[in-house]
Amino acid sequence: MNKVITIGREFGSGGRELGKRLAEHLNIAYYDKEIIEEISRRTQLAEGYVRQIVEQKPGIYFPITVGRTLHTSNSDYMVKQQTSVYAEQANVLREMAEKSDCVIVGRCADYILKDHNPLRIFVYADMESKIKRCREKAEVEEHLSDKEMEKMIRKVDKNRSHYYTYYTGQKWGRHANYDLCINTSALPVKGFAEALADLIKGME
Amino acid sequence: MNKVITIGREFGSGGRELGKRLAEHLNIAYYDKEIIEEISRRTQLAEGYVRQIVEQKPGIYFPITVGRTLHTSNSDYMVKQQTSVYAEQANVLREMAEKSDCVIVGRCADYILKDHNPLRIFVYADMESKIKRCREKAEVEEHLSDKEMEKMIRKVDKNRSHYYTYYTGQKWGRHANYDLCINTSALPVKGFAEALADLIKGME
Repeated sequence: MNKVITIGREFGSGGRELGKRLAEHLNIAYYDKEIIEEISRRTQLAEGYVRQIVEQKPGIYFPITVGRTLHTSNSDYMVKQQTSVYAEQANVLREMAEKSDCVIVGRCADYILKDHNPLRIFVYADMESKIKRCREKAEVEEHLSDKEMEKMIRKVDKNRSHYYTYYTGQKWGRHANYDLCINTSALPVKGFAEALADLIKGME
Repeated sequence: MNKVITIGREFGSGGRELGKRLAEHLNIAYYDKEIIEEISRRTQLAEGYVRQIVEQKPGIYFPITVGRTLHTSNSDYMVKQQTSVYAEQANVLREMAEKSDCVIVGRCADYILKDHNPLRIFVYADMESKIKRCREKAEVEEHLSDKEMEKMIRKVDKNRSHYYTYYTGQKWGRHANYDLCINTSALPVKGFAEALADLIKGME
């Protein structure tokens, strides 16, 4: 069975960076935005629309004109679309895990791929560190005040938490659902990725 | 300021082993049972009695004759004694942290020593692994069935959780209260301790 590493992460905690670095050190595939692209291709829905679906609370309905096809707004139809996006996401993740060793960021991958016995990592940080990291990395939020940024971070994480619980029945970030939970306020992402990659190599 | 590493741990998860190995690799002091011995010396209470106090739910009263002095059983007196043991424990921990770099297992040290900015580790595992580890390491529980051992593990952890929350106001094992949470069902204690010690050395 291929080695699969899944990364759940709070917004701005450096989970994506940790995943990328782990994949580089281990010389294995890294999947993040590619998942959305693939779902979009398969469902024939626009990437932006798929992203809205998978990044918002399930049960919230978006203007359907964002998609490629025009439909009359209908909540039943929307729920079906959300469900089919989730189902397609599960297919995409399973195919990725069966293809080769890989690191997968987000997307309830720890739960969907549980039969692959993944190494399940959760990455988090305190608010101050997350705001600092957002300022350093994400230019788009440059105009936001610290207070506005904190509000945005909380909103994104609330949606992630809700989404995760909705589809898995588990609590997002609860340690028992993961093999390793890393607070990047205290531990350096770069060094930790290297140390962890070496450890994983040694476990083979 | 000295480097302080605190280890909270579920019973049977290997937290003590991780702490010992970390201390060895880093060549720093390791405190575990020494804390109880020192509290006992200072409070003039028997070690077994101190251990009962710090390992049971606060608010539960033990027969006072277990201690060195005989008193009429009185719940107010017991509460005072529990409180003074906790206060003495805090003094002992602070002195240990001020003396030299160290690893401290249990005893709400992550909370008590928060001004020392410790690296706060929480060690846990799934029930199957904990039972297996208990069988391998702790000869005293040899006579217990798996079911009895599971019951005992759950009871010890429930007491630890209650004790931690009582004195810190925080949730035991909640990732936000720690810098690193390690599931030893998935990650080997020996290898992880070595990798983490190297990382910590590199952070200096």
